[in-house]
This record gives sequence, C-alpha cells and structure tokens, in this order.
Amino acid sequence: MTRGGFTLPGEAGYERLTLDLCKKWGADCIRDSDGTQLSEDILTSGIPIYSTLCLVRSVNAWAKRNMDKLQRNFLITQPVLAEASTLRIDPLAGFFREQFALTPSDDPKTYWQVYDRTTGMLTEDWGWDGTYVTVYNAAPGHLYTVSFLATRIWEEISMYNHITNGWGDREHLMAVEPRYPEAQAELLRFLEAWCQSRPRTSVVRFTSLFYNFAWFWGADEARRTLFADWGSYDFTVNPVSLAEFEKEYGYRMTAEDFVNGGLYRPTHNPPTKKQRDWMAFTGRFVREFGRKCVDVAHRYGKKAYVFYDDSWIGLEPWNGRFAEFGFDGLIKCVFNAFEARLCAGVPVPVHELRLHPYLFPTGLTGEPTFARGGHPEEDARRYWLRVRRALLRVKIDRIGLGGYLHLTEAFPAFQEEIAHIAEEFRALRALHEGGAPWESGVRVAVLQSWGSLRTWNCAGHMHEHPDLPLNHLYEALAGLPFPLTCLSLDEVAQNGVPEGVDVLLNAGREGDAWSGGDGWKDGRLTAAVQAFTARGGGLIGVGEPSAVRGGGRFFALADVLGVDREVGRTNCVVKWPAREQTNHFITGGLPVGAPFHNHVGGVYPVSAATQVLRLVGGDVAVAANAFGRGRAVYLSGFTVNGENTALLRRAVRWAAGREAEDALWSAENPACECAYFPKQNRLVVLNNTSKAQTTAVRTPQGELYCRLEPRAMAQLTLGKR
Amino acid sequence: MTRGGFTLPGEAGYERLTLDLCKKWGADCIRDSDGTQLSEDILTSGIPIYSTLCLVRSVNAWAKRNMDKLQRNFLITQPVLAEASTLRIDPLAGFFREQFALTPSDDPKTYWQVYDRTTGMLTEDWGWDGTYVTVYNAAPGHLYTVSFLATRIWEEISMYNHITNGWGDREHLMAVEPRYPEAQAELLRFLEAWCQSRPRTSVVRFTSLFYNFAWFWGADEARRTLFADWGSYDFTVNPVSLAEFEKEYGYRMTAEDFVNGGLYRPTHNPPTKKQRDWMAFTGRFVREFGRKCVDVAHRYGKKAYVFYDDSWIGLEPWNGRFAEFGFDGLIKCVFNAFEARLCAGVPVPVHELRLHPYLFPTGLTGEPTFARGGHPEEDARRYWLRVRRALLRVKIDRIGLGGYLHLTEAFPAFQEEIAHIAEEFRALRALHEGGAPWESGVRVAVLQSWGSLRTWNCAGHMHEHPDLPLNHLYEALAGLPFPLTCLSLDEVAQNGVPEGVDVLLNAGREGDAWSGGDGWKDGRLTAAVQAFTARGGGLIGVGEPSAVRGGGRFFALADVLGVDREVGRTNCVVKWPAREQTNHFITGGLPVGAPFHNHVGGVYPVSAATQVLRLVGGDVAVAANAFGRGRAVYLSGFTVNGENTALLRRAVRWAAGREAEDALWSAENPACECAYFPKQNRLVVLNNTSKAQTTAVRTPQGELYCRLEPRAMAQLTLGKR
Repeated sequence: MTRGGFTLPGEAGYERLTLDLCKKWGADCIRDSDGTQLSEDILTSGIPIYSTLCLVRSVNAWAKRNMDKLQRNFLITQPVLAEASTLRIDPLAGFFREQFALTPSDDPKTYWQVYDRTTGMLTEDWGWDGTYVTVYNAAPGHLYTVSFLATRIWEEISMYNHITNGWGDREHLMAVEPRYPEAQAELLRFLEAWCQSRPRTSVVRFTSLFYNFAWFWGADEARRTLFADWGSYDFTVNPVSLAEFEKEYGYRMTAEDFVNGGLYRPTHNPPTKKQRDWMAFTGRFVREFGRKCVDVAHRYGKKAYVFYDDSWIGLEPWNGRFAEFGFDGLIKCVFNAFEARLCAGVPVPVHELRLHPYLFPTGLTGEPTFARGGHPEEDARRYWLRVRRALLRVKIDRIGLGGYLHLTEAFPAFQEEIAHIAEEFRALRALHEGGAPWESGVRVAVLQSWGSLRTWNCAGHMHEHPDLPLNHLYEALAGLPFPLTCLSLDEVAQNGVPEGVDVLLNAGREGDAWSGGDGWKDGRLTAAVQAFTARGGGLIGVGEPSAVRGGGRFFALADVLGVDREVGRTNCVVKWPAREQTNHFITGGLPVGAPFHNHVGGVYPVSAATQVLRLVGGDVAVAANAFGRGRAVYLSGFTVNGENTALLRRAVRWAAGREAEDALWSAENPACECAYFPKQNRLVVLNNTSKAQTTAVRTPQGELYCRLEPRAMAQLTLGKR
Repeated sequence: MTRGGFTLPGEAGYERLTLDLCKKWGADCIRDSDGTQLSEDILTSGIPIYSTLCLVRSVNAWAKRNMDKLQRNFLITQPVLAEASTLRIDPLAGFFREQFALTPSDDPKTYWQVYDRTTGMLTEDWGWDGTYVTVYNAAPGHLYTVSFLATRIWEEISMYNHITNGWGDREHLMAVEPRYPEAQAELLRFLEAWCQSRPRTSVVRFTSLFYNFAWFWGADEARRTLFADWGSYDFTVNPVSLAEFEKEYGYRMTAEDFVNGGLYRPTHNPPTKKQRDWMAFTGRFVREFGRKCVDVAHRYGKKAYVFYDDSWIGLEPWNGRFAEFGFDGLIKCVFNAFEARLCAGVPVPVHELRLHPYLFPTGLTGEPTFARGGHPEEDARRYWLRVRRALLRVKIDRIGLGGYLHLTEAFPAFQEEIAHIAEEFRALRALHEGGAPWESGVRVAVLQSWGSLRTWNCAGHMHEHPDLPLNHLYEALAGLPFPLTCLSLDEVAQNGVPEGVDVLLNAGREGDAWSGGDGWKDGRLTAAVQAFTARGGGLIGVGEPSAVRGGGRFFALADVLGVDREVGRTNCVVKWPAREQTNHFITGGLPVGAPFHNHVGGVYPVSAATQVLRLVGGDVAVAANAFGRGRAVYLSGFTVNGENTALLRRAVRWAAGREAEDALWSAENPACECAYFPKQNRLVVLNNTSKAQTTAVRTPQGELYCRLEPRAMAQLTLGKR
C-alpha cells in the first residue's frame, strides 16, 4: 500500500474514523469542509491541515452595516406590452426578492435603462416612484423593458445551501463588493485575524475568490433558476467598477452592455469587444486583490491554494495571467476527464482533484448518495473511470474528497473503493514522475471564440450542457495522445494559424461561441484556415463549424470540409447523391455506432469529390475531403464513448496525414486505452468499461494482447529492444 | 349525364376514340398536345379547337442564323482553390455544354466578374483566352469564382423531352430573346402566319410565354439538374435588358446581383430591392410583348388562353397586373388543392384546370402511368380527391387533360374514372353558378416576403418542396371556408396590418422568404403585428415564424406567440417547465396525431402564461397565448391531412376569437369536409378518403348525419327553415 497525494475531509467528533481513513486511503492532509470543524485531536495529529475560506461572505456583520457596499448586477425585466400610452413596470417582478433588492443610493437615472424593444430604441421618458417605473408616451402594441442595477442581498452558495437544506432562520450571508476600499480593508483585516487564529493550518484553501458565477433566481418555485452561467461577469458590476472602467477605457458601459436585450452575455455566445474589455479590466482587479490575499497567507507561513469552482471570474486558470496570483496549488472538482486536463495544465506547483461524490446525503439533482438507496461506491467508480483516462496523459499531484466523513461509515464498499482509486492514482502519478508518456506528436488546436481562456471546458460541467459537441470532444481528447491548445478566431484572423498546429478543430452550432458566429464574416479568418489546410494542415469540423449566413455557403469552410448544411437557402440546389464509402481509414474497422445524439441534419456534399463515410437518414454524418495538400473531416455531432473516441482519434490522424502511425501504442479494442512510458519502458492499459475486455496493443516489437477485468488498469513492463 | 367544361386532347389516327371520349367525358373542346396532331375529321367535327403554341422556341431556323440573339443567363463556377499566385478556371466546367455556351459577341470584361470568395472582393486582375479565365496575383489558399454570361443553346423543355424520350438526332430547339427587336419581329411574323394557317382554331393556347423557370443542368449525369426554381428570373438577363435596365433605373445590375455568391436568387429566399426592381422591369416587358401576341390572336378572331407552367416569369397571375395581357383564359395544371385556388382567384374570364395524370406512358419520376404496371385511374382519383376540396370553395370553369389520347384505350377504368370526375366537377360548378357558398367570415392573411405575388403557392409544386410548412398550410386552407390574401412584410411594415384581416399567418424557417428573414429587423413590422394582435387580432406562427437573430428573442414575435426557439443563444436560461394542457378548444376532441413531419425542435414557452397544447419530446409542438386583447397560436410545423386541417381550422377560429361559431357547417369527422350553398339551400359533403365515413354536420336547424362511400361526394337539399 502506498501513501500520499490525498486530502481527507476530517470531522470533529469522528477523530478515530478520521485517522483510520487517513491510513486506509494513504492521506497526507486533512481539510475542513463547509459545515465541519476539525477538533484539537485532529489539528495536533501531525498531519498537515487545509482550512477552507470563502472570503467575500465571511464578514456578514460588517456587510449588514454597509448594505450600500454589497455586490450588484444588472437585470432586465421581461418585455411588457404597452396597451395604452402610459405603462407601469415593477423592475423586480419575477425575480427572487430574497436575492435581489434595489439600493436607494444608486440613482436610477444614472444606471437604469428603459427600452422600447419593438423598435430597439432607448427612451428617457420615464419616472421612478420607488416601486414602479412609469413609461410615458409609450406606443401601444410595443414591448418595453427596464434594465436596472440590483443589489444582491444573499450570497448564492449560502442561499442555495440554506434553502436546499431548510436552514430556517439561520443568517443569510451576503457578498461584499471588494471594489469599495472600505470593504477591501475589512476583508484583509478579517483574513489577517483568521490566519493568526489558525496556527495549525498549513494551507489556506480559498473557496474560491470574489465573484460568483451568474445565477439569477426567480420568484416562482416552478422555475427557481432563471439564468446560470459559470463564465459570465454579471456580478462584477457596481458604481465603483463602472466609474473606474470609464476612466480607464474612455467609454462608459451601460446596462444594455450586460443585459443585451435579455440574452445577457453567456459564455456560449461569442464575446463582444466591450465584453472583453470589461473582462480584462475586472481580471486585473481580481488578480491584484487576489494577490494581496495570497500575500497575507504567505506572510503567516501558510500556502495558498484555490478551489476553482463557484467563482471563476478573473480566476480562469488558462487566461495566461494565473501565475500572477502566486497561488501554491489549484484544486478542481471533477466529474469528467476534461476537468482533470484543465487542472493539470495550469502553471501552479500543486494540481489537485476533488473527486465525486461529495460526502453529502444527496447528490446534484437530489438523488441519494450517502443515504438509503444510494450507492456511493458506484458513483465513485463511474466518475473515476471517466477521470482516470486523463491521468494516462498528464500528471496530477493530489486527489481528495469533501464533505462529512462520518457519512462513509455506513458505506464500507465506498471506503474500499476510494482506497483502490487512491492506489491507482498514486501508481499513475509515479509513472509520470518517472518521465512523460509517449505522445503522438499530432498537435490539435481547438478554434473557438474564446481561445485559450476556455481551454478544456466550454462553460460549466458536461452534465449541464450535455448536447454541446465541444464538451464531448474535449472529453474524448482528454484521454488521447494529442497535445491540445485553444486558439481564438480573432488571433487566427490576425496572425494566421500559428506554427505547431497539425489539426484544427472547430465544433459548435451556428452563432455560438464554439463555432464562432459572426467571427466567420472576417475573410482573414477563412483565408487563414483555408491557407493552413491547402498547405497540408488538417481540419475537423463538427456540427455547424464556421456557420454564418451571408456568403454563398452556410459553412464558411464548406469547400474545405466538402460539405455544407441546408438551412433553407439552397432548396433549389439539387444535391450530389450521397453514397456511403465503407472502406475508409477513419471508419474502417470500427463498428457503425448509434448516430451522434446531437447529430445536425441536412448536411450534404458540395462536391462529387467529397468522401461520404456515414449517412443518417440520407444526411451526412461523417465525411472526409481533400483540400489542396491538406485534409478535412466533418462530423455531424459528437457523443463521447469508446467507439467515437476511436473514430475521433483516427479522424485526427487522417486529417494530419499520419494515419500510418495510428496503430502504434493504441488499444485496438475501443473499450480500452493505453499509454506508454518510455523511460520506465512500461505500458499502462485501461479497461474503461464495467465488462471484462481483451485488446491488442501494437508496440514497435509487435502486438501485445491483454485481458482486463472490468475497470482494470494493467501495467506491463516491456521486454528490452 | 351532363356535358361541357371539358377539354379533351384529340389525336390524329384516333378519330373514333376522340369523338367517343368526347361524348363519354362531356367534352366541349378538343386540343392538340406536344407531339400530337389533329386530323381534318376532328378539326371539322364542329367541336371548338384549342391549339398549343410555345412561341420562343418556334422559330428555330431563324434562331440558328442569329445565335447572338438567343436567351442568356448568368452562371457562376464552383469556388476554385488558388494553390499558387496564378489560377486557371474553365467557366463552363461542370455545366452541361449542350445547354450552355459562351457567345463571342458578349465582351467578358463587360459582363463577367471574378471574385475572391474568401475575402468577398472583386478582382480585375484576370484575362480570358477564349477557353480559360486566368486569375493573376491570386492569394494562395483563397477560393475564386468566375461569374459569366452564358447563352442557352437548347430550350429546356425541348431538351428535357428530347433526352428523356431518347429523340436522337431530332433538332434541338432554341429559345430566342424577344428583347432583340429583330427577334420580336420574327416572333410576331411567325404568330401571324400561324394564326392565318389555322382557321379551325378557336383558342390559341400559349404554352406559356417567353422565359422558362431557372433550370441549370450539369455535365455529370449523376446530378443532371444543378438548380431549379419556378419563380426566379435568371433567364431574362442579356445585353439588351441589362442596358435598358440601367437607362431606366439609373444603376447597373451586375452578374453578382443574379448569382449571389452561388446562391442565385431562389424564390425561397427573401428578395432584395434590386431583385424586385429587375422583376418589375422584366414584368413590364413580358406584359407589353405578351399583349402584342394576344392582340394578334384576337385579330384573327381567336381567343388567347395561357397555360401557367414552365414559364412563370412576368406572368404571375397574382401580381396585380395580369389583366393587362388581355388573356381570355388561364389554364393551370394541378396536383393539389392550392393550385386550383391559385387558378380560381385570377381576374380572367375562364379558369381551367389541367388534371393529372398526363396521358404519357410514364409520370414525373419515371413511374409507369399509361404503361404496364400503371394504374392511371388510381392516380386520377388521388389527385382529384386533393383538388376537389378546393372546388367546394371556389368556382372553376373548365377541366381537361393533355397528352396521347390513344394511351387510354388499354385503361378503360381510367376512362370511367374521368367520366365520373367530370360529372362531379360539373355538379360543383353548377352549385357555384347558383350562388357563392357560405363562408365563415374569418379572413386569413399570409404574411411572407413576396406578398400577393406568391398567393396560393410557395414556388413550384408541393411534391418539389414537401417539407415547406407553408405549402402544407396553403393546401389545408384551400379547402377551408376562410377567405385568404397574402401580405408582404414590406407593406405591413409601411402601412400596418390592413383592415379586413382577422388572422395573420406567418410560416417558414429562419431566413426564408416565407418566415421573412431580415425583414423582421424592421421594428415597424414587429410593431404592426404586435399592435394588430394587442388590439384583438389573431396570429398563427408556424415553424420558425418571424425568426431573426440580433434581438433578445429569436422569434421577433416570441412575446406574442408565447414561445421562442433555443438555437444555442439561451443555453444558460432555464426554461419554464412545459406541461401539456389537454382540454383546449384547439386540440380538444381531436385525436393526437403523429408529429408534424417538419416539426422544429427546441421550442419552449417564454412565459408561465403560455398554454402548451402539445409536446413532442419535451418541446412545444402546439401552443396558444393571449396577447393584449388578441390571441396567438404556435405550431412547430405542419403536415396536411384531415386531422391537422381540422386543427388548423380550430386554431384560426380560436385566434380570431370566434371559436363558438366553429361547429356550424363543419363536418365533425376530419376525414370529411362540407360546403353549404345558401341560394340553393344545398349542402355538399365530401369524403376525402378511400374508406367509408360517417360524419355529423351542424346546421342552424340541428345536426345532420351522413354516411359516405369511399371518396363520395353527397349533395343534400336541406329542409325549409
């Protein structure tokens, strides 16, 4: 049995269990959790201690005295029909009034906007009586909205836990706005005192920084969440930030720049220039103030780790500036392999994964986990099977759990499973410590609107947007031996496809940030991708890649991909008859699986030369095309599973023109994956399924055959050459 | 047995059959057909004679001597990749060289255009060597197209018949361009001589006028048709028309205005201002020259009828100027009810339907009709069942057939069926002659980009675009007692919804001419429809009504309809839970049918007040909503059949706020329809199916019950009140 790299959630009153499980799981750190305490016995056990801290909601007494210094955000009402020339609108109608309130000190005429949404025109002809906005000289039949600055009087995570767990009259925690110098001083003062009073704490685990993801609640319980986006910056707006931004950028952000006619600015939609300015401006503030907090921890001789969840804002670890915080570790909760890759690639000393399930009675959707009817050992296994693939490719330093440790007492199978997972984790870590695994050398770059900022994730978890093809592609790629980077449409338009990219991937739906939307109206972008492919590069397009209306094609890259989509503009064009070619490298040898669950219909070949590899109901699902000296592959969607991951691997290889090398260090059975660690001359083979599997693996010396038990991970030391 | 209103295709050598069937079918006219002659016996039988004439292809000897005066059109090559800085393009590559040629007298530098399609920029840096265009200083990786003026050296209907029937070395007929004064003179000279030589002809049946529908053929037999559109004006372009247009409108039309980056200008896409100018300009010419031809026929004491098929251009009978031709009759070939409505509503003395099947061995897709394996009597029945519904509502003066009469000899069941159809037709005509049928008084206006020009048709036949919801809606409405008009988006934006409209209907897909595309960016349009509904009007939206990206909603009328569609822009918005309400007037009492075959997924309620009447896979398929004093209905698609026609009837009634009157003069069984002719106090009940049906019909005196044989038409004289 090995030891180390494991963070265990301790719990006061369960000292014996804490120390027993420390031993069983090989833990070398103990943490507290929301709602748990560590007792003196644990604190003095000699095992290093992590202490969690959510700073902005930790000074509630001060917050109550300074309600004008809470965090704010812009909201927009539903469109309201004018039936006469005067119209009354209640700004907060439909919103949860325990989350949102109006702040009398914020002048409506300065911050609010009233729009005739039917004409798209702003009107100044309105008044505010403290309860209602009255619109004067309204046009009957038109729809009006009020956009307004709301103060958030209940921090969302506190609100969610409170309401979900029925905490009754327990205090509502509020998030203070650190842009106010007084608030910032109070937070630093609190942090100093907090560090001072925790001599046993070796790691301050920030949960997480200052601004939650956008989460607007509604008044109606039938629709409690109105809007939720992990990536958007709605909660960073307030009189101070608006004024500072205007001073710095020379223009003023208005409510409309945030509420955007009711769409807001979700991460799934391509960002505007203004939005990027605001994000850069806010990011600088978060880093500056974040650095001050890290410095306090360091001053007290503690390490500072950050938990990347709940508040991503300014903290995005792939934004190129993350190192400026000076964090000593990054902790990411993971359901999926791509989240492990997100964590592993960040420039920070320690990379830690917080595994699921969380040690709570119920899971994300209220299903039992550590409660009657729950099977937490199966949950743990399922998530681990997903995550483990990524750990074939990259090194992770630590894993851990969170929640109430005592809940595991009734689930000994779970305790065993975690011990087993910890062993597998440490075995994989040891291999990486001995030297990097073999990599194919085929370098993939994902082309989307956000570029590197959204590397290894779209926005949120896979299960929140299960239809996004890019989520599924990230997940498949997380276990494949292709180094991955992300490029923004803008940078490719400006500078072309950079050196060091073999295959470009564009995957999304018309108009979204992942396909790129109007970014494809920039001829420089299309030119860059066409030139890259024509010179011999590879392109993979998924769903509605490069889709934009306006030109002669719907996919800007249709001539590269060899396919386009019928969206009603070419009903009079007779299409080339599409016949399936079954003997192609990309699909050859693979079973014809179920269609992609997010299959986009109506795709047709634009040329007789397009190779159609799979049809669904007469529409193209997989196609391959030559373009100049390069190659392109089209997929009508993507669902991650073993077969499709193998299909993607072969598509990447084919697009790169390197299909001859594909068999090397690949598991022939799509239910399995493997990695070769040349320094140790060791091969690791994974069975990603719950059934026994047999697979061949091609090595330079010939084929190896392995039989693997369900979910097994096998290590083989290869013979000398 | 009755007689009259029937046009029979005679055939030389089959004089006995011709006269026998004249009697059997009650024919009062004999016509010739393409490829048939009428003998002296027939011509002197005393029965009036129709003679068919396709003028523009009738002067082939002259055409051969004047190849520079043939019809032309703009074409565009496929995009061609530049791999170096010089690029050679063969303009005619991929086109059928027996249809298209280049005319040396047309200067390429005047009429052609070379585009860098990657940047969207025109280049002048190219040369022409008589075979190839060479592009100089091309950007490697960019795609280039050549747009050019082609001469059509084979008239398309001649070409199609020739190739389909394997006519070998029979002469290729060519279409002359009547814009050339010399061509026009030749055509009129020919027409005079033609009339003079046919003293027995009482009706000149123009088949049809001057410009065929756009029909581009390809070189590859695997894809013979590249592009086909009944409505587009591609074949009207030539040096004369371009020069005259520029003189008249003060600006020049270029190749790009027609080829549009490869999309051309299909009727399914919203028209541009330039396109409308060109259509108006061409329409004037067609009417002027058409009138001259009609005048010739009249001068010889003959009537002039026009067959509305093959060449719609400038002839569109709902364009508001059709009467200017002076035609005495309009003949429309019909597969569907909406085509009968299209014919019946035109301001012309005689309305005639050419029934199907055509008396040819094979049908449209090569299937046998009057050949072994064919069942022409079943075909005739099927089409008649569709068309007959329309004749409940409107008067048609004549019906008829076309083709080789002798083919019917082997199909006596067909001869019987036509006799039966002719009887039913004459019975319906007699009822209309006695006075108009009862109408509901609920007036429906279809709102689309083309307005009245495309009344009762989208573009082409139903079977060519079987997925277009508006085709199906026109078909359903063709048998319903709602007067119908069409309004263009432009006119409603400019003038509001006119008086005399109870229910507006907008049905199409994002960006198409039927939904309206960017027309919805005009706030005046949305304002007009919202104001109309808010004041008490009705709105029915189908598929992606008023869909346009840009604003906060995807459907510009989402707040009126109560629903919007998720197209990836609102992934972070949590939707109202949609629960089916089963007791609504619109769906109540109707069986839940199969989903619309063109169902648009992802539609969700935008408000808790939206009434969801039918869900398909969690998405809204039918919804109802109140808006101000008006009402709106949403349908996610539309497939015409008995149940859906009843659903639409109820939706129209409900939207108009007149659901209480719905039962009156409606057949309760959706397999049946009926009309009441108050002057004669007669009720006609149709069984639209091939099974016996029973239905109740509510009359002011109470309910009537009818049992109808398969396909039966029952007439009942009601008791005195």
